[in-house]
Amino acid sequence: MRPLFSVLHSDPASRARVGLLDTPHGTIETPIFCPVGTAATVKAMTPVELSEIGVQMLLCNSYHLYLRPGHELIRRLGGLHRFMGWAGPILTDSGGFQIRSLAGLCRVTDEGVSFRSHIDGSLHQFTPERSIEVQVALGSDIIMAFDECLPYPCEREATEASLERTTRWARRSKEVFEKGFTQDPKGPLLFGIVQGGFYKDLRRQSAEELMEVGFGGYAVGGLSVGEPPELMLETLGGVTELLPADRPRYLMGVGRPEDLVEGVYRGIDLFDCVMPTRHARTGELFTRFGSVIIKQARYQEDNRPIESDCQCFSCRNFTRAYLRHLFLGHEILGIRLNTIHNLHYYVELMRDIRRSVSVDRFTAFRERFYAMRRETQECG
Amino acid sequence: MRPLFSVLHSDPASRARVGLLDTPHGTIETPIFCPVGTAATVKAMTPVELSEIGVQMLLCNSYHLYLRPGHELIRRLGGLHRFMGWAGPILTDSGGFQIRSLAGLCRVTDEGVSFRSHIDGSLHQFTPERSIEVQVALGSDIIMAFDECLPYPCEREATEASLERTTRWARRSKEVFEKGFTQDPKGPLLFGIVQGGFYKDLRRQSAEELMEVGFGGYAVGGLSVGEPPELMLETLGGVTELLPADRPRYLMGVGRPEDLVEGVYRGIDLFDCVMPTRHARTGELFTRFGSVIIKQARYQEDNRPIESDCQCFSCRNFTRAYLRHLFLGHEILGIRLNTIHNLHYYVELMRDIRRSVSVDRFTAFRERFYAMRRETQECG
Repeated sequence: MRPLFSVLHSDPASRARVGLLDTPHGTIETPIFCPVGTAATVKAMTPVELSEIGVQMLLCNSYHLYLRPGHELIRRLGGLHRFMGWAGPILTDSGGFQIRSLAGLCRVTDEGVSFRSHIDGSLHQFTPERSIEVQVALGSDIIMAFDECLPYPCEREATEASLERTTRWARRSKEVFEKGFTQDPKGPLLFGIVQGGFYKDLRRQSAEELMEVGFGGYAVGGLSVGEPPELMLETLGGVTELLPADRPRYLMGVGRPEDLVEGVYRGIDLFDCVMPTRHARTGELFTRFGSVIIKQARYQEDNRPIESDCQCFSCRNFTRAYLRHLFLGHEILGIRLNTIHNLHYYVELMRDIRRSVSVDRFTAFRERFYAMRRETQECG
Repeated sequence: MRPLFSVLHSDPASRARVGLLDTPHGTIETPIFCPVGTAATVKAMTPVELSEIGVQMLLCNSYHLYLRPGHELIRRLGGLHRFMGWAGPILTDSGGFQIRSLAGLCRVTDEGVSFRSHIDGSLHQFTPERSIEVQVALGSDIIMAFDECLPYPCEREATEASLERTTRWARRSKEVFEKGFTQDPKGPLLFGIVQGGFYKDLRRQSAEELMEVGFGGYAVGGLSVGEPPELMLETLGGVTELLPADRPRYLMGVGRPEDLVEGVYRGIDLFDCVMPTRHARTGELFTRFGSVIIKQARYQEDNRPIESDCQCFSCRNFTRAYLRHLFLGHEILGIRLNTIHNLHYYVELMRDIRRSVSVDRFTAFRERFYAMRRETQECG
């Protein structure tokens, strides 16, 4: 039996690699981008459409589903896959990030985090045990250990205390997870999350402590929280070089197309981000030549598709002029078509990356990726 | 060559009939319901989805498209069909109703109507000539003569003056229409609109005057404007008995499922209404057993589809519990799935009606239609 994660090929010139990751709901090809289906729906999309685009795995938010409709309700209805009609793998986050970014003021102790619901203000507590319980009830394929995510900038002392708490929580997460699944080789995977802010030695400490606990995969958390992009990449590279090569590496909540390229370069296998779906709703469309801001007057009579040789449903059937019209009228169809295009762009980008890594052309791919964007900037 | 409209079979017990109507973009089976695609999109739906449901023809609003993106723009981009990616027939209204219901205060003279845009307050004028020009620029398959629509109740004297103006406008509409299309047997059809409020003799006067002008089809306008349902049906029946049997009859902007059954009973061939799409967005789902108000707590753990043996995409793939969850979270996917179901219901209702008329079973169908609703009311 091969391991759950197997690296098929590694780029000789970087830490990029292609691999296969087995989950209870199927095997995925890495590196991969996961669209975000916060409340058990990738906004505006049906599961069939996601499959047609080539989406392999989704991320769903434990915090949101815990609050509404409730993880126990979803469990009783047959689990998250059945509830939302998605047959492929689902990764759930731990809830830690959303509690900090969305919920009302929280009290953090070693026990866990108290918070108020952003929906109705009701009081709740998440602990490592609770977070795992929620994710198990949902029926997640990849479960994240409960962690604490800090803002940027953050003092060294607070960062250190927080990462040490994250390690303790990771240990408790693993304990409760193993009670349920240690005997099941077809069960979900548990990932630990490396924290430590932007202090290289604290990141190293976090990574080493988590590896000692031992996880099915390792995530890099606490990035893209307001720091400059170069600092993000530097910190990321510092972490990935420490992580074991035989485990999948996951960069959480990042990001831009260039972040995917740079993440893969530094050895990342999994990504998630709201960017393609959220930007679709605000009318920013990704192309290999940079972004199209669809509301601009220049597209008013533009009978071309968003991107000239794009094969997505939106580009095959509709013009920029029509998409601009839909956007200005706040039409749902506009959001739908924009979302399809942006997800297609992200999925194709990851496919191109995998292809280039497979044939030792990733360095050339990366250069061309930036060259195409520069060209367009020169053209205006 | 058969005429553009041919009645294939008439119900012996009512004025119901089935027929075929040729348009520049294909032949449709009547009686038919047209979903409303106000701003060149049936809200939340792609054209492919509409075709899959079995939608044959759409109604688009001239007033909205004139204001945004502009009929001339649409003409330059290849016409409305190409702009919105819909290959089937499109019926456009004259703008008269929207000007009264949406636009800022208007001045009505024999020349036409002045109004302010509901989007930016700018001043505009619609005349019969303008209305036809807009509809021709859009590339409509069925063009409506410009008419004046009155509120309910309305004094007899005002109603009489208004219907006479509508007749004069209908004549001018036909004149300008014929300049463009009289030589083209494959061109669009022009329909006249019977007005006259709720005065039987004025409705008769309007119908007779329009028949004297002569149109490809006849619409009944000014109904469902606040009057009691019985008065609506009584007025409708009074008009349809006057209209020529060899021309399609169109009931504008009406309505509820029972109105479709009763309209067909009284000889109507075409319907349009925002009800299925608008109610989808407010969470009211049509079924043969009455409406499902999807936000209700009773559906919280309901793993059944909206309607037990419905074959629509939503019912085949998703539960009431999930649709309720999406609705409470204001998720676009919820609006999409609701819209698919409601349009499917309307299309299937019309298909069932056509089938029953074809085999002389319409009376039985109509009885069963009401019996199924009563049953459920008794069940609570």
